[in-house]
Amino acid sequence: MRKIGIIGLGHVGATVAYTLVSKGLVDELVLIDANDKKVVAEQYDLLDAIARLDTSTTIKVQDYATLKDADLIITAFGNIGIIQEDGDRFGELKFNAKAVEQVAPKIKSSGFDGILINIGNPCDVVTAYLQQLTELPQKHVFGTGTFLDTARMQRAVGMKLGLDPKNIGGYVYGEHGESQFVAWSTVTVNGRPINEMQAGYQIDFETLETDARRGGWFIFSGKGFTNYAIATCVVKLTRAVLSNAHFAAPVSTYSPEFKTYVGQPAVVGANGIESLVFLKLSELEHGQLKSSAGFIKQKIEGLSRN
Amino acid sequence: MRKIGIIGLGHVGATVAYTLVSKGLVDELVLIDANDKKVVAEQYDLLDAIARLDTSTTIKVQDYATLKDADLIITAFGNIGIIQEDGDRFGELKFNAKAVEQVAPKIKSSGFDGILINIGNPCDVVTAYLQQLTELPQKHVFGTGTFLDTARMQRAVGMKLGLDPKNIGGYVYGEHGESQFVAWSTVTVNGRPINEMQAGYQIDFETLETDARRGGWFIFSGKGFTNYAIATCVVKLTRAVLSNAHFAAPVSTYSPEFKTYVGQPAVVGANGIESLVFLKLSELEHGQLKSSAGFIKQKIEGLSRN
Amino acid sequence: MRKIGIIGLGHVGATVAYTLVSKGLVDELVLIDANDKKVVAEQYDLLDAIARLDTSTTIKVQDYATLKDADLIITAFGNIGIIQEDGDRFGELKFNAKAVEQVAPKIKSSGFDGILINIGNPCDVVTAYLQQLTELPQKHVFGTGTFLDTARMQRAVGMKLGLDPKNIGGYVYGEHGESQFVAWSTVTVNGRPINEMQAGYQIDFETLETDARRGGWFIFSGKGFTNYAIATCVVKLTRAVLSNAHFAAPVSTYSPEFKTYVGQPAVVGANGIESLVFLKLSELEHGQLKSSAGFIKQKIEGLSRN
Amino acid sequence: MRKIGIIGLGHVGATVAYTLVSKGLVDELVLIDANDKKVVAEQYDLLDAIARLDTSTTIKVQDYATLKDADLIITAFGNIGIIQEDGDRFGELKFNAKAVEQVAPKIKSSGFDGILINIGNPCDVVTAYLQQLTELPQKHVFGTGTFLDTARMQRAVGMKLGLDPKNIGGYVYGEHGESQFVAWSTVTVNGRPINEMQAGYQIDFETLETDARRGGWFIFSGKGFTNYAIATCVVKLTRAVLSNAHFAAPVSTYSPEFKTYVGQPAVVGANGIESLVFLKLSELEHGQLKSSAGFIKQKIEGLSRN
Repeated sequence: MRKIGIIGLGHVGATVAYTLVSKGLVDELVLIDANDKKVVAEQYDLLDAIARLDTSTTIKVQDYATLKDADLIITAFGNIGIIQEDGDRFGELKFNAKAVEQVAPKIKSSGFDGILINIGNPCDVVTAYLQQLTELPQKHVFGTGTFLDTARMQRAVGMKLGLDPKNIGGYVYGEHGESQFVAWSTVTVNGRPINEMQAGYQIDFETLETDARRGGWFIFSGKGFTNYAIATCVVKLTRAVLSNAHFAAPVSTYSPEFKTYVGQPAVVGANGIESLVFLKLSELEHGQLKSSAGFIKQKIEGLSRN
Repeated sequence: MRKIGIIGLGHVGATVAYTLVSKGLVDELVLIDANDKKVVAEQYDLLDAIARLDTSTTIKVQDYATLKDADLIITAFGNIGIIQEDGDRFGELKFNAKAVEQVAPKIKSSGFDGILINIGNPCDVVTAYLQQLTELPQKHVFGTGTFLDTARMQRAVGMKLGLDPKNIGGYVYGEHGESQFVAWSTVTVNGRPINEMQAGYQIDFETLETDARRGGWFIFSGKGFTNYAIATCVVKLTRAVLSNAHFAAPVSTYSPEFKTYVGQPAVVGANGIESLVFLKLSELEHGQLKSSAGFIKQKIEGLSRN
Repeated sequence: MRKIGIIGLGHVGATVAYTLVSKGLVDELVLIDANDKKVVAEQYDLLDAIARLDTSTTIKVQDYATLKDADLIITAFGNIGIIQEDGDRFGELKFNAKAVEQVAPKIKSSGFDGILINIGNPCDVVTAYLQQLTELPQKHVFGTGTFLDTARMQRAVGMKLGLDPKNIGGYVYGEHGESQFVAWSTVTVNGRPINEMQAGYQIDFETLETDARRGGWFIFSGKGFTNYAIATCVVKLTRAVLSNAHFAAPVSTYSPEFKTYVGQPAVVGANGIESLVFLKLSELEHGQLKSSAGFIKQKIEGLSRN
Repeated sequence: MRKIGIIGLGHVGATVAYTLVSKGLVDELVLIDANDKKVVAEQYDLLDAIARLDTSTTIKVQDYATLKDADLIITAFGNIGIIQEDGDRFGELKFNAKAVEQVAPKIKSSGFDGILINIGNPCDVVTAYLQQLTELPQKHVFGTGTFLDTARMQRAVGMKLGLDPKNIGGYVYGEHGESQFVAWSTVTVNGRPINEMQAGYQIDFETLETDARRGGWFIFSGKGFTNYAIATCVVKLTRAVLSNAHFAAPVSTYSPEFKTYVGQPAVVGANGIESLVFLKLSELEHGQLKSSAGFIKQKIEGLSRN
């Protein structure tokens, strides 16, 4: 029996819930949000869909106690209104830090001992803070990090070359934010290193990288938020945990080298982060990663000081 | 190759697009909306998901000409802001009638000769108007009508009796609006007529009916719109058309008896409405249907007079 | 985490395994068969598919101990060779009774306390015997019974009337074998009792009933076994248990009235059989059910006497 | 509307049909086999499943004429009995060459102008012969080739390293048969070239390669045929064609360099083979490819001479 909790039913959390229910991926779903009316509305909109789906899902709301035996909790809180004003994922930090302080003790006291995947932004900082306050093992708490940015890089490169994004390999590393970077040395096209193809195909790395990094803002400016691609990222990680897939993906997890959560490839399984994936980055890339990790670390320390 | 157009990318249209793409149900999707930035934002949010899905979808935008060989068009335009003020689906009529007048000629001139399913509200009136202005065959144009209300009735009855809504049979007839009614004489529970069970199980029809009819408003008041259940209804009808399933569902289609579009069970296949389903309604129910149909007819005539 | 064991990897058991894996419905699958080489071959054929699927599944073989925390066990043993000679599901009884005697103690000693769904034939007798020897609660052990025969009835009626089988309601009752019968008083077409339509549509009940009852043999004679439809039946019941759907389906379960396992509609949920569904059968139908139940009961008692 | 024909309803063809129907991937399916009783049996086993699936599929049999507007034809003929005696895929050549000679003219005269994917063995030779005799454009006819062998290599490497096979990149090239080879220079683990890891992880390439190449025979010896993994390969290619995905996969397609069909990575889309993927093979690998291609070429020429 698959049991999943979602905390925070904004555009992203609700889309994750809908994806899990409409694809029949979860047997029991627990929805929690600060807004009682909102969470019940989402519950009923989903329940009204059951008659039109092949599958059924038990949907509970606002019940932390029942998270005790959940396989997974997905945290998706946030306040899009703040970003809409600021245009910066860090605009949400103060709001989400408070959310963590309210939510984490309740997760802890529920007795939950599964895996926690955080989507809330700024993703790396919020994930680290959630781990600190829930006191769950470090490997059991990770964030979607640059998995979405990597999908955008795959889309950008695939679009440029007329290929399915699924044929583009490689990773975006670092912060799920402005200091992220595409590790071009890891990027492959149908298995071929993109570095080798650059000249022949007139590939402008800078343009593609901007497309990946700013892709979210572009969508954001057109629809006021982004929800679909991130929901598919979360669902993929969720399935990897449930089936103990040992699936490699760039997520926000603790780096012993940099002593902070930061986006990097890792192997995801039933125990959360099963291992880290170490690729040979170029010196420049390693520097970028260090710098991005340093930025995140400082933000996390800023939180803890309060 | 499955090709579908969606016109109107509000909450519902976008959710339908996401469902079709994330479930790999469509090969080519054409998205059209009055707002250029919005439609491109939705396109990219969906394209960014392709790297995380097992399937791929070609997504085009704002291109009426390419609808020529589409299997299906789904119209989902609307202006939720108007309803949020008025709390009445008819609040959108003026807005959506204009939308029909703008959209229908473009559909017509594309040479499209597939099936058109309308979600836009007031559903029955807008569907009829779309059929008039596109001049598509009457059977090729239908609306989601009371298919959603029926899902809500199934949910309400199932919830009352502790059963999967999929075990509840029967139909909501009439307007997708206030004059709709549950035809209780058609409702069954695990195959048993609910009329027989009413006393033993203390089933209060009025409460359940209100729950079904007002369920949408309840969700609406909690989240500002409804999108998930309606999206699953549209997807189910879409699949029935594509696979020529001859699947029976209550939809808004033309009634020769009442000379108007109105919600009633019909058999859906590759030709749209393959036939109507005639159930023995009680005298009271037949009167309710006549009255609801009359209300819709008057609204349609009001449109045509302008 | 969804964990399922399949015992018996013949055509049906293997097809169930493939369906669960290829649709990503299970996280951990335990395959057990008398033939070591066969079970490992199926395991590898499924593992070779993982690279081509969106999902992953952990697949273990020949390990009864790991069934301890499985949600479900599906028993699908049999010896199709015997039937191929005899043309009678009872041909397998002696063989499958022995299989039960070997398998049941191992299930018991694993500490398994989930739900057991039996497919092995003769289904009603084997299910009853499995319940006796595993000593699992009666509600936790049921058989696919007439769920498949009902699907065939729905197909036969749908085909006759040019309708999707999903629009045909009603149930086949009794033995999953020759003494089964279609309870025509329960059958509906798009919600309308078929009894009312019989004359108008020239529906010959006898022909349709033979089609449903003998449909399996027809397929059997063409391909040597039947596996696809039965696999979809099992998967549907499996999902109903996992998600606690309270989904009504005709399955082989214990009848207090007839004091035997027999095919009848029941509500399926996390506890296996949540309740029985009692429909008003005609006097003739009730007699047929009694007679079919009596036949099964006698066969079960024959087993216990040995 | 997606329309697909399957010619040859053995274990593989039937499993492909079941996968397409049970996942709702096709709207109209045309099944053709030399054995009338067998094809009708498969048709009914699938039709009996429709009542238990969320989707519907129109299933036609033995009708070449209706292939005219099919999107795709999948050829899966063969005679497993011959291989069971010989243990060599070439055992089927004589049988399948005859099948091609019977089937190809019928495909041609149907007016079919879609994409043809061949599974029948020896895959490369049969694919080439089908292309010759159907006179379809070379890019419109390709074989599953080493896509299955590549899946087995991914499984073998993944299993060795405790990783999801989906994280293993790279390709098996050459004949879908004994002269195939793993192009280790293309193989990556979570994006890292396996060549770099060989020493540290004690990876024995020869053992893994044998596992990939002989994996089929291992399964074959345990269950008498292989069907599941190959079915998922075909379905993946089918979807790539339908959605014009431009998805890269190693398939059997025409090599201008070697002037023969041979397994190599190519980009698959609506036009079949959209382009070839050229990776820098090692000198040894290039030699192996040349040799394997030469072997296939000779077999094809042997056919044409008759």
